[in-house]
Amino acid sequence: MFEFEIAHRDGLARVASFHTPRGTVTTPMFMPVGTQGTVKGISPQELTEIGSQMILGNTYHLMLRPGEALVEAHGGLPGFTAYAGPFLTDSGGFQVMSLGHMRKITEEGVTFKSHLDGSLVNLTPERSIQVQEALGADVIMAFDECPPFPAEVPYIRASLERTVRWLERCVTVKQKPEQALFAIVQGGIHEELRQQSLDLTLPFDTPGFAIGGLAVGESKPEMYPAVAFTAQRLPENKPRYLMGVGHPEDLVAAIALGVDMFDCVYPTRTGRFGYALTDDGRLNLNSSAPRTQLEPIDKECDCYACQHYTRAYLAHLLRAEEMLAPRMLSLHNLRYLHRLVERAREAIAAGRYTDWATDWAGRYFKGQIPDWFRQALETGAGNLSDLSR
Amino acid sequence: MFEFEIAHRDGLARVASFHTPRGTVTTPMFMPVGTQGTVKGISPQELTEIGSQMILGNTYHLMLRPGEALVEAHGGLPGFTAYAGPFLTDSGGFQVMSLGHMRKITEEGVTFKSHLDGSLVNLTPERSIQVQEALGADVIMAFDECPPFPAEVPYIRASLERTVRWLERCVTVKQKPEQALFAIVQGGIHEELRQQSLDLTLPFDTPGFAIGGLAVGESKPEMYPAVAFTAQRLPENKPRYLMGVGHPEDLVAAIALGVDMFDCVYPTRTGRFGYALTDDGRLNLNSSAPRTQLEPIDKECDCYACQHYTRAYLAHLLRAEEMLAPRMLSLHNLRYLHRLVERAREAIAAGRYTDWATDWAGRYFKGQIPDWFRQALETGAGNLSDLSR
Repeated sequence: MFEFEIAHRDGLARVASFHTPRGTVTTPMFMPVGTQGTVKGISPQELTEIGSQMILGNTYHLMLRPGEALVEAHGGLPGFTAYAGPFLTDSGGFQVMSLGHMRKITEEGVTFKSHLDGSLVNLTPERSIQVQEALGADVIMAFDECPPFPAEVPYIRASLERTVRWLERCVTVKQKPEQALFAIVQGGIHEELRQQSLDLTLPFDTPGFAIGGLAVGESKPEMYPAVAFTAQRLPENKPRYLMGVGHPEDLVAAIALGVDMFDCVYPTRTGRFGYALTDDGRLNLNSSAPRTQLEPIDKECDCYACQHYTRAYLAHLLRAEEMLAPRMLSLHNLRYLHRLVERAREAIAAGRYTDWATDWAGRYFKGQIPDWFRQALETGAGNLSDLSR
Repeated sequence: MFEFEIAHRDGLARVASFHTPRGTVTTPMFMPVGTQGTVKGISPQELTEIGSQMILGNTYHLMLRPGEALVEAHGGLPGFTAYAGPFLTDSGGFQVMSLGHMRKITEEGVTFKSHLDGSLVNLTPERSIQVQEALGADVIMAFDECPPFPAEVPYIRASLERTVRWLERCVTVKQKPEQALFAIVQGGIHEELRQQSLDLTLPFDTPGFAIGGLAVGESKPEMYPAVAFTAQRLPENKPRYLMGVGHPEDLVAAIALGVDMFDCVYPTRTGRFGYALTDDGRLNLNSSAPRTQLEPIDKECDCYACQHYTRAYLAHLLRAEEMLAPRMLSLHNLRYLHRLVERAREAIAAGRYTDWATDWAGRYFKGQIPDWFRQALETGAGNLSDLSR
């Protein structure tokens, strides 16, 4: 259970099988976000058809509404949502910070006012694990604090040390062997803090590790060295999960650095706003040009929207505020990211990840590949010798 | 083409095959409404899966946005919407009355201000046919006026006479043999006016006839005698379409009276508001009881929502304002009406329509079957001898 078998390596990038109780997933993978027990607008059947493998659920949202007891009464998230495959739940820590009002962090945990009704709620490591055991995901996350960006070094240090003490409490109370608890490495964009967090976290030897505390406002040139530093110091034989990250260019760059798992609301949220992800960048279907274009969003895409609809039709649906528009654009964008990681896996298996990623980026960035992206690819490719030690 | 073959009769009710260029449909049937080129939230694949046969498009909406030229550039509604089966378009007449601002009716046609941008638009019989030919439906409707309820008899008389003159102009300009033009009988709830409209309209011998001007505010005891009167005087060998009608009890009552075709936004609209149609009446998923019910909306239903979701889950989606809720409730409600007409067809074929409809109504109305409904069934059953003359 929770075995992580690497099938191919290319530099730091790898293709692996991750075995979970509800099925084996192939990494690198992108996990659609089902915040409130549904990937917005998309059915489980569609998720399976477009190649989704593991769905993320949010502890914060689900504990507040409908409450974890109702989900548990359905046999957990698979019964509740009718998605029969593997799930991952976050710990609630991140969203307490971003959504809870008047939050107060103590050694015990976090007290906050619900964004739904203002009621006072406590979330502690013990409570987070209890909720996540009721939700029944295959992978659950340790309760952590994700400091805002920017934050002072002393604050980040105190926070990551507390997060490790919270991890210890999570490990202590966790009961279900069919759930894998992943620890989260913090430390912001500071190498010495990342190293401290690694030193304190790795001894817990959890079945997987997440890189937390990034994509919270820092620039990409600030973020990627922290990804590179942390990913290389995580165990080879366990999955590495870069939390909350999922623009196309992020997936391609972080895969080069050895990241295996991603999640982000970006594909569904930007889809609801009328944007479609393509190899040529983001297509704005709210603009005037698509209104008369009788071609699909993406000729190379095999999603339902691209197989059936023109840009003109989808642009019409958007202007008419028809529900089918956000549904179809969300579906396309998720399929785009799934196809992107599928292509990345093929390139890794063929030992040509850097070439593929460079070609992809040349088109995506219209010839202006940013330095942070090139450096991520170079770091990923250049460390092959280190790994073979 | 457009042949209407009656396979079974039971009283006034009948089961028939209606042949159209894009396929043969079986009546009685309910047509989902795709106002703006989409049945709200539902994909064409789903429409096919739940047993939809013919989809309605709205001339008024589509001519204003995106404009019929764009739809025609896609090869008409099938290419635009990706629903490959038969379509029906209304003439725009009804919606000009309900949505257009500052409308002015003359012998020539109607002038109104668009509800989208206030621009001045003309709609005439000629223009309606031109738009409907561009939209490319299999069945198109004559341009008519649907008077409001209540209206004075002299007004309704003048209106129905003008509608007949408009019908003549529609017939004159119509060009495409692959489209069937249906005439519309008006006359409100007045038998003498219905008879006058029939006398003036039937000679046009169109491939089908619609009963218009009902379900516009009159009560059911006022409406059903008008349906009964008109339906019995329409040709036996042509489809009869009761426009804009589609509550479950309406379908069951009007099928008894020999109506073959129905359309209504009701199933999708009430679904978006959180209501589910069942044999036990309308279930309000916004109420508190369903929040903890671990059963499907309807154990007898084979739709995706009933096969996968509990009432508690759907109630959660509604409270969380998740898009999947209106999508799934619209899908269920459409499937409910399609299953209802399927069961009606089986009962007609078995020669037990009155019994089936009475059983259905006993449960639906919780033992309190209204008089108008009983009378419709009695009229439908009692006229068998008349028809066999």
